[in-house]
Amino acid sequence: MVNPQVDRSKPVEKQDKDLAAKIVKETDAGIVIRGARMVSTLCAYANDLLVLPSTSLATSKEAELYAFGFSAAVNVPGLPAVGDPPERRLGARPARFDETDAMAIFDDVLVPWERVFIHRDAELCNGLYNRTGIMPQIMHQFATKNLAKAEFMMGLGFAIAESTNIDQHLHVQGMLAELIEFTEFSRACLRASEADAAPSSSGVMTPAAMPLWTVRMMFPKMFVRMCEIIQLLGAGGLVAVPSYAELAGPVAADVATYFQAANADSATRIKLFRLAFDTAVSSFSGRQQLYERYYSGDPVRLAGTLYGLYDKDTYIDRVAAMLDDLEAHHQREGSRPNPSAVAGKG
Amino acid sequence: MVNPQVDRSKPVEKQDKDLAAKIVKETDAGIVIRGARMVSTLCAYANDLLVLPSTSLATSKEAELYAFGFSAAVNVPGLPAVGDPPERRLGARPARFDETDAMAIFDDVLVPWERVFIHRDAELCNGLYNRTGIMPQIMHQFATKNLAKAEFMMGLGFAIAESTNIDQHLHVQGMLAELIEFTEFSRACLRASEADAAPSSSGVMTPAAMPLWTVRMMFPKMFVRMCEIIQLLGAGGLVAVPSYAELAGPVAADVATYFQAANADSATRIKLFRLAFDTAVSSFSGRQQLYERYYSGDPVRLAGTLYGLYDKDTYIDRVAAMLDDLEAHHQREGSRPNPSAVAGKG
Amino acid sequence: MVNPQVDRSKPVEKQDKDLAAKIVKETDAGIVIRGARMVSTLCAYANDLLVLPSTSLATSKEAELYAFGFSAAVNVPGLPAVGDPPERRLGARPARFDETDAMAIFDDVLVPWERVFIHRDAELCNGLYNRTGIMPQIMHQFATKNLAKAEFMMGLGFAIAESTNIDQHLHVQGMLAELIEFTEFSRACLRASEADAAPSSSGVMTPAAMPLWTVRMMFPKMFVRMCEIIQLLGAGGLVAVPSYAELAGPVAADVATYFQAANADSATRIKLFRLAFDTAVSSFSGRQQLYERYYSGDPVRLAGTLYGLYDKDTYIDRVAAMLDDLEAHHQREGSRPNPSAVAGKG
Amino acid sequence: MVNPQVDRSKPVEKQDKDLAAKIVKETDAGIVIRGARMVSTLCAYANDLLVLPSTSLATSKEAELYAFGFSAAVNVPGLPAVGDPPERRLGARPARFDETDAMAIFDDVLVPWERVFIHRDAELCNGLYNRTGIMPQIMHQFATKNLAKAEFMMGLGFAIAESTNIDQHLHVQGMLAELIEFTEFSRACLRASEADAAPSSSGVMTPAAMPLWTVRMMFPKMFVRMCEIIQLLGAGGLVAVPSYAELAGPVAADVATYFQAANADSATRIKLFRLAFDTAVSSFSGRQQLYERYYSGDPVRLAGTLYGLYDKDTYIDRVAAMLDDLEAHHQREGSRPNPSAVAGKG
Repeated sequence: MVNPQVDRSKPVEKQDKDLAAKIVKETDAGIVIRGARMVSTLCAYANDLLVLPSTSLATSKEAELYAFGFSAAVNVPGLPAVGDPPERRLGARPARFDETDAMAIFDDVLVPWERVFIHRDAELCNGLYNRTGIMPQIMHQFATKNLAKAEFMMGLGFAIAESTNIDQHLHVQGMLAELIEFTEFSRACLRASEADAAPSSSGVMTPAAMPLWTVRMMFPKMFVRMCEIIQLLGAGGLVAVPSYAELAGPVAADVATYFQAANADSATRIKLFRLAFDTAVSSFSGRQQLYERYYSGDPVRLAGTLYGLYDKDTYIDRVAAMLDDLEAHHQREGSRPNPSAVAGKG
Repeated sequence: MVNPQVDRSKPVEKQDKDLAAKIVKETDAGIVIRGARMVSTLCAYANDLLVLPSTSLATSKEAELYAFGFSAAVNVPGLPAVGDPPERRLGARPARFDETDAMAIFDDVLVPWERVFIHRDAELCNGLYNRTGIMPQIMHQFATKNLAKAEFMMGLGFAIAESTNIDQHLHVQGMLAELIEFTEFSRACLRASEADAAPSSSGVMTPAAMPLWTVRMMFPKMFVRMCEIIQLLGAGGLVAVPSYAELAGPVAADVATYFQAANADSATRIKLFRLAFDTAVSSFSGRQQLYERYYSGDPVRLAGTLYGLYDKDTYIDRVAAMLDDLEAHHQREGSRPNPSAVAGKG
Repeated sequence: MVNPQVDRSKPVEKQDKDLAAKIVKETDAGIVIRGARMVSTLCAYANDLLVLPSTSLATSKEAELYAFGFSAAVNVPGLPAVGDPPERRLGARPARFDETDAMAIFDDVLVPWERVFIHRDAELCNGLYNRTGIMPQIMHQFATKNLAKAEFMMGLGFAIAESTNIDQHLHVQGMLAELIEFTEFSRACLRASEADAAPSSSGVMTPAAMPLWTVRMMFPKMFVRMCEIIQLLGAGGLVAVPSYAELAGPVAADVATYFQAANADSATRIKLFRLAFDTAVSSFSGRQQLYERYYSGDPVRLAGTLYGLYDKDTYIDRVAAMLDDLEAHHQREGSRPNPSAVAGKG
Repeated sequence: MVNPQVDRSKPVEKQDKDLAAKIVKETDAGIVIRGARMVSTLCAYANDLLVLPSTSLATSKEAELYAFGFSAAVNVPGLPAVGDPPERRLGARPARFDETDAMAIFDDVLVPWERVFIHRDAELCNGLYNRTGIMPQIMHQFATKNLAKAEFMMGLGFAIAESTNIDQHLHVQGMLAELIEFTEFSRACLRASEADAAPSSSGVMTPAAMPLWTVRMMFPKMFVRMCEIIQLLGAGGLVAVPSYAELAGPVAADVATYFQAANADSATRIKLFRLAFDTAVSSFSGRQQLYERYYSGDPVRLAGTLYGLYDKDTYIDRVAAMLDDLEAHHQREGSRPNPSAVAGKG
């Protein structure tokens, strides 16, 4: 759950319009929260919201009010009441919008102390994912989902290409090979993360992080390209796909005749092309692309995070050692080092 | 109107499933057409279908049956009858599917000779666009539409970026600059085509073709990138946009408060982000991308067409002359020519 | 002439290592300059260096020392002395490195007042290009050069493709069509800038700026792609190209036999492929790519400049007006506006 | 060793100019070979050439003459004679050109039967790599090399970015993160291929093929991008790098002063930037890019090969099963299936 977009050029505690969930009061009973968080996949059947730190916080006095972690029960009007938890009256009230995305609005919700996990502790918030070693586990789940998606898109691409015999063209084979590459990339990274899994400091078996970071960073662009490939394979055939209803309606005979493909009868072809439309052209597809791009964080910031945590010195040192060796070699030979010489005619 | 996709590895006259519109009989009254054509933007209020040659045809006996051009009146069940043309009984019957795309099915339609413009003449079909000099006119209309689209996408991008102040980030300015480039590219090409317009051999003022070919080939990819940029600018904010109804519904007060952006109240921001969603995430957007990619022909084939018609020899000759000059120069100097020497350390 | 790279995260006046050319003294005779400037194409036969403002300056007291414009005579050891200008003793001394790039080092050079054009005036420096209206003229020269380069690369691509008959493949035609697009893009923008040329406020006929900005921003990436296409067309054939010498050496007969292409004898093919190597694989090519990317400024900063100067409000206002119209329309109809409805099934 | 490029639109046995190595005679002593093969990395110290099948052959009578595999001793004029093999007189004579690439010319070389491994057997030639199971071993070697290259490019990128403090910019971190991704991608695929290694049918421990295919297909583009990133990181700083000689020459003091970077003295910075130039701008770099693109085959053909050998049916069947399940479900419910409904607002 992340803070709402208001002024994306400023940190949460510097906003002119103060809309993000924050601590507005502390009482003997607990903390009182006011404001909103965005939820990307709110489960409609949830009883509880687990509100954890989102983006990195400053360690200032003002930012402290946004430095919390807690759980609160949900009271969703219009959903079947599951039990009747006392927290219902707290007023945690998610507004429901399209897809299953939502904004959770906390209207002076009192969170009892026993449900408060982090309180005014920016440092704890910022280090939460690293210290618990949970990130590789989450990324393993990402990658598993991504492999399933890639296999599906690839199978769909194969099926479309075969149905109209376009897989005989070299440039179509090129796009189908890309689908294979993206799938096997995801599978290989997942496999490598498992092959080098090891217990974390707290004894939890943890997959190797780097192969999973690779998927996390590279898959979103691959997914967008996969959607594009499905579009390019379906081409004009995606433009005028009849609905299922028309298979049985007054023009049924024409539909059965004229929507055949070389290797598929009309019913099969329509099913396949509607699936392709849903997968790669529809609002559902657009939202999927958006989801892959943002669900694990703003990719521009993520790149900074990856660069920050990566062991850079090992590789810088190797380059330095190489240059030193070269220099030493040339000094022994009595000549000035000349890296260009290494490159032949460089 | 193009032939339906069946077996895309074979020309129309070699299909195992013979579904494309073709001449099945010739009578004193006219030609009889059976089969289908795909229509990308059938106007629901049309009285007549103008059926012109689509993709390039072989000049064989078999292909001749697909080599025609004619007009036929439309009888669309469920549409207001506009007059009552005699051709209605001919049975020209377009099936209507989603968007305004359709397949027109000719169920043994008799086309009277006075409505037949081309008959069994593949050569005439294939050369139609070139001989009439109509292509630059059509491409000018494409490019005008594309400029309007680009201006709209650019304005939308500016508006989104300003609303949440993200235009202060360098990488966001980079994407906004891309929108500017695509717009000004379209405008410059259109302008150049007009600046060098000249009367065609039949005396029609005709815009210069090459600047318009450039738009035709390059704009589809730019349009897809423009949609992507709108997605990247809206980011997570595109995921949970309330509907208009919610501005007045039971959660109206929360919506008014929590969907503000730095520089926009909730109503404005919701309008803007819904527009962005429709433009760059929705099925409407997906269909637009498909349209830009295919409405003027399969881009892979188009590239071949452009290469085929382009004046290549002028440029090849210049390269040859340059190499000859170089050789002559070196022979005068008494040395073997060495192009590499020109490149300095190359 | 730009300041040397030292710490690229800080402006010139905040550098810990103070190496950029700056004013170190002012005397009755003139200003004394110490420090360096990078020169991308120092003409070896120049008598004078014209040192003008480079990147944007702060308007602080410290930055003032870097806010100047002047000319100084060159004294290049090892170059033929052209006349014997009094400024020689000033010590302006460019160090010469590879290509014709260089760093000009000012070793307490006294610049007489009559050669000082701008003095401690950051505002004048920053606005220089805009106020003089010189930028469109410079960009017109860029674009002219780029068109010539594109025509050359395109001709070379055609010649290579024909020599081994690969232009029969669709994917090769696709790459050749890209070369055509890049060339015609450059030509169309140049043409549009001329078609809309107009006298500037100081009465100088000035080409329209936006078509030229488009070339400035888009051509560098196109040039890199053009080099890549030449590589992809030449493919393995670029790997083992004999030198010219071998056409006449001991293996001349074998070279004459075995380096033929389908449509070219060995001598022609070797000339052509060596030219392709120099153009797209060699150090000369690498340096050209670098040059196109940077000679007119850091592209990341340039995008910000373009965004800054562009007339954004016109387009934002149009989007706003569209949303207002839509709302007004729906209010007249007694219903809530719903932009999504516009998009059909969006 | 592949056949020379002559007419790339035709298979080897259909060439008008018959230059590729082929069997011209068969005697009691062996086969006589005439013609050429291209060698991408001929080791100058080799005694023997192992000539194995290259691209896929037709199974016709004519193509048979190109369907062979043999070894022949090398006699390289100008190279130290290593022993004096009897085959020297056979006349196997590689012409030496730039880099270590070469064309081997067989001038009626008699290959004794005991050195002929394949003779007029296109099927054996075409299936050689698959039957021996050697491809995964070769690709493992490719991938190991690629990982080493990626680590080097990444280390170099880190070192350049740190030297001028540009790693504080988000967009630079983005490029450095890309270098990390490419490295970790290579490492993960290599690791996965080892984790799932298994004995082949002939009992040789063989790495899993698909993770290695992924590297084979994706790495060449990554390598080109890595070179581009090094160019973009070095930027203008790559243009005027002094040579080593100038560190000790007449302008040594100026060089020592003015080529410092924020975090590196002049000597270190010059070494680093010359290395970057050699790696990403020089002819050496251009040739490396070419090598990565082609050494394991024409990427367009390779994509076809991958598509051909991949197990497609498993994935097509899964898509079909999904569509069938959906249909069955809807028939139980008494309604027509509607895949769009799955996609929500699709």
